[in-house]
Amino acid sequence: MLDSLPEGTAVPDAGASEPATLRVRMELAYDGAAFNGWAAQPGLPTVQGALEEALAMVVRRPVRTVVAGRTDAGVHARGQVVHFDLTPAEWEKLPRGRGLDPEEALVRRVRGVLSRLEGAVFVHSAAPAEPGFDARFSALWRRYSYRIADGPDRWDPLTRATTLWHGQPLDADLMNAEAAAVAGRHDFHSFCKPREGATTIRTLEDFRFVRGEDGVLVAHLRADAFCHNMVRALVGAALMVGDGREPQGWLAGRLGEKVRDSKTRLAAPHPLVLEEVAYPGATELGTRAEQTRARRAAHDVDAR
Amino acid sequence: MLDSLPEGTAVPDAGASEPATLRVRMELAYDGAAFNGWAAQPGLPTVQGALEEALAMVVRRPVRTVVAGRTDAGVHARGQVVHFDLTPAEWEKLPRGRGLDPEEALVRRVRGVLSRLEGAVFVHSAAPAEPGFDARFSALWRRYSYRIADGPDRWDPLTRATTLWHGQPLDADLMNAEAAAVAGRHDFHSFCKPREGATTIRTLEDFRFVRGEDGVLVAHLRADAFCHNMVRALVGAALMVGDGREPQGWLAGRLGEKVRDSKTRLAAPHPLVLEEVAYPGATELGTRAEQTRARRAAHDVDAR
Repeated sequence: MLDSLPEGTAVPDAGASEPATLRVRMELAYDGAAFNGWAAQPGLPTVQGALEEALAMVVRRPVRTVVAGRTDAGVHARGQVVHFDLTPAEWEKLPRGRGLDPEEALVRRVRGVLSRLEGAVFVHSAAPAEPGFDARFSALWRRYSYRIADGPDRWDPLTRATTLWHGQPLDADLMNAEAAAVAGRHDFHSFCKPREGATTIRTLEDFRFVRGEDGVLVAHLRADAFCHNMVRALVGAALMVGDGREPQGWLAGRLGEKVRDSKTRLAAPHPLVLEEVAYPGATELGTRAEQTRARRAAHDVDAR
Repeated sequence: MLDSLPEGTAVPDAGASEPATLRVRMELAYDGAAFNGWAAQPGLPTVQGALEEALAMVVRRPVRTVVAGRTDAGVHARGQVVHFDLTPAEWEKLPRGRGLDPEEALVRRVRGVLSRLEGAVFVHSAAPAEPGFDARFSALWRRYSYRIADGPDRWDPLTRATTLWHGQPLDADLMNAEAAAVAGRHDFHSFCKPREGATTIRTLEDFRFVRGEDGVLVAHLRADAFCHNMVRALVGAALMVGDGREPQGWLAGRLGEKVRDSKTRLAAPHPLVLEEVAYPGATELGTRAEQTRARRAAHDVDAR
């Protein structure tokens, strides 16, 4: 995985005479339906692949990106954050004499290359990062949403690409009680696809279901980080209780079992959106990254 | 055009012994991106074609539908209404002995056939119509919406299939003043693609722009009926004023010119949605249909 490479080694051609690197923080949104997930895979369309190809065309060398939240195939993002490192000379050259500042030039040129994807990936901003910034390790939390239309009366063809069409009505109060019972710092093994030697302890800071004016039920989840499949497994379990297939208290029970088995059901990926990644203020960025790295030193932790 | 056929001739195989027809009112929604518009065209995917094919499979004979609002290629609907006529025997046979009522059986079976389109067309309801009901001629008004994200900060890949990505910021107050100036009963010739011998007089009952919490500007338009291209031409003209390409007062001026020329610009079809069609109460349905037919007797009027 690219984002488990050691940090600070990201500029392949930075010569000895030019040791300083300029870290760029970029924010982007994408429609996951067009991609096999975030992480680059040979021969498959991925968001990382598309973005790094665009950056390579603009900077004229390979550029490795580090992402805040790796998304699975079919999962979308509105507020994804990445970083990558340029040399100061590369940064200054971005406007190519057109009277733009480098931020503006970078955004325009990357948008230009990505426009061939007809809006599936859209870069919102790019700017020099504050000192110590790391898109993955400086993050305080990630926030996801998951849209569910429970019952045919609420099924809308115009939003079906980002909404679960669930056949049965869901009891939102019951689901909120289930969600509250698993919030907090726990070992989420029952709701994770673990990697060898990786911890599945996470802090689920917020998990609730809100019914909108259009009747669509939206799950909101926020955690310091999510392990692989965690959001979809949590929502999948809440659906089982919400439509009566499993009894009240089922989520807390599953959490306590610390086992991933056939009862772990993943909700479909297409209604899932990475909405936002939050970072501390400038003075805390480096400290936060160091803390995260130290806390995860013993265990190789996925960041999603 | 199918819906200019004389009414009351819609049941090809109703025998002499079974003269009564049972008119069904059906409500449906669709994603226009998958179709070449509403109206059936040989060899092209259309919503009418898909629906009538499904009805033919369920009823086991060709079924002609009459629609409230014919939509152009790429235009969507959330609250489209159609009617078609069955024989009482066909209606009673719909449940096929499964213990459902005919309404429920019809909706389920049509949904079943249309499910091959993966949610692009979704039938919300079907029921025997009140006496005198005609999906086209009984309608009191049609309401459309048009979504515009004016400026890259508001461009969201997840809603791009139903939203105009406009590069320049729009002055909503200015656009609302323009809209108000053309509301009311007028000859909308400048904003219509007229048909030979057809009137372009319409009553535009509501036309306004509302900026939502997400910053997206949504046009709302309601009229007794719209002529061909009218919504897209009105929105296209308002965009010209909203971003400063044309001066204040331009829409009213264009309305007065009563000419369709190169200054008539159509806004793109994909952000346009037929939201709702309204009908009078049961006692007024027949009267309304007769009035509409009488008013349009001299001129062949499009209903959209």
